Amino acid sequence: MKKIKMELSYDGGRYFGWQRQKDNVLTIQGQVESALRKLFKDDSIAICASGRTDAGVHAYAQVAHAWVPDKAEKMPLLRGLNSLIPDDISVHSVDLVSDDFHAIGSSVQKTYLYKVYNSPTPFALNSKYKLWVRQPLDIKKLNDWSQVLVGTHDFKSFMTTGSEVKSTVREILLAEWSYLPETPTDIQFLISGTGFLKQMVRNIVGTLLHLHYNGGSASELKDILQALDRRRAFKSAPAHGLYLKEVVYPDELAKSFKAL
Amino acid sequence: MKKIKMELSYDGGRYFGWQRQKDNVLTIQGQVESALRKLFKDDSIAICASGRTDAGVHAYAQVAHAWVPDKAEKMPLLRGLNSLIPDDISVHSVDLVSDDFHAIGSSVQKTYLYKVYNSPTPFALNSKYKLWVRQPLDIKKLNDWSQVLVGTHDFKSFMTTGSEVKSTVREILLAEWSYLPETPTDIQFLISGTGFLKQMVRNIVGTLLHLHYNGGSASELKDILQALDRRRAFKSAPAHGLYLKEVVYPDELAKSFKAL
Repeated sequence: MKKIKMELSYDGGRYFGWQRQKDNVLTIQGQVESALRKLFKDDSIAICASGRTDAGVHAYAQVAHAWVPDKAEKMPLLRGLNSLIPDDISVHSVDLVSDDFHAIGSSVQKTYLYKVYNSPTPFALNSKYKLWVRQPLDIKKLNDWSQVLVGTHDFKSFMTTGSEVKSTVREILLAEWSYLPETPTDIQFLISGTGFLKQMVRNIVGTLLHLHYNGGSASELKDILQALDRRRAFKSAPAHGLYLKEVVYPDELAKSFKAL
Repeated sequence: MKKIKMELSYDGGRYFGWQRQKDNVLTIQGQVESALRKLFKDDSIAICASGRTDAGVHAYAQVAHAWVPDKAEKMPLLRGLNSLIPDDISVHSVDLVSDDFHAIGSSVQKTYLYKVYNSPTPFALNSKYKLWVRQPLDIKKLNDWSQVLVGTHDFKSFMTTGSEVKSTVREILLAEWSYLPETPTDIQFLISGTGFLKQMVRNIVGTLLHLHYNGGSASELKDILQALDRRRAFKSAPAHGLYLKEVVYPDELAKSFKAL
């Protein structure tokens, strides 16, 4: 067997998230794993992603690793996988990695994108891919407040319970709201860090929007962060606006990626 | 009764096109008309669009007119409509127009967009919204060839039969292939004209792609155009890459649009 790294995109809309569940529950891991098992006629093949995206969350470039038979070749594997999985999941690349590569353990940085459509009336082509917000958003204010989150902090207040983690301390490297070029209505929030807690991005976005629409302030956000209590933060932003954008691995590991 | 002009967007994916059919067939006209009828408790209300988009075709800004009761007010109508129609159809604006405004008859220009994703591997977030093309496309070539179509011509070779039109002569004002900024994979074809025949844009795109992949030439495209025979052109490009982008009305009419 040899170890591969796959990069995948998905439209999370109709899936119950990444993580495989019972056989009648539609998940992204379930679809990709089943395709690999079918391709190699080996029911023991399993895949491990950089993180488990929630139900409804999309991905530009999720990364997962798996062990596959030595006979696997790059192009037949790519074509075979993409023909066996549904159109709303795509595998962009497969590369050979060293045995110590681990999709979770080796990652050094992750970036998420949250998309907002800000207009008094909805736009149908966005409805499954952006959060529609009617009242005008003040991007400068959101940007200023978001700087409170940059740096190394205990993000316990922004972690949805139900996940077991050793530490709730994470480092946020960038948190930036911006308009898409040439549109006064399309806004995105880019957040990059060494790692994220369960539903952390959605809890941050939901809290920022709540504070924005309810006369909040940067110091209020700071208080919430320092409270280390999920009950102090506000409602999660919906999943359909969230995208896993990029997972970064160290250059040394990247160099070990070889064509299969 | 007073006459209104509506601007709507839709994700055509799950609809059998714009035009209302039997009650159990899902159409965009059916959804919007039913919402208007429900709002005003008047089953005689009908809407007329600038053109009937086919099954699976999307719209950024379709335009339709309708007669509504005099008591209709702008914001309640917008909110009411958007709350009654599904999320994959949106009404952006409603304006009062003069009695002689007609969504088809008054339009002076229409623009369509065809989206292509050009990469050896698919991208899941595009699969319902762009045509995935594996082999590299030569944009310069496509652009050069497309200039054959610009101007006033009889486009009979690019009209799918089954539509009754007085004349198959149309004027194309612009036909341009371009890359989206900062992506080597995202290509769009913008085509603008005074009017279009049935499936004309999809027949043009399908023929251009066929010629591109089969060693065609500008003069071959010219021959097809001049043949005035649909059998000489090639297979229609799929509906899911096509968007009605804009319908233009004369400035004089625009000035007559009033708040309801």
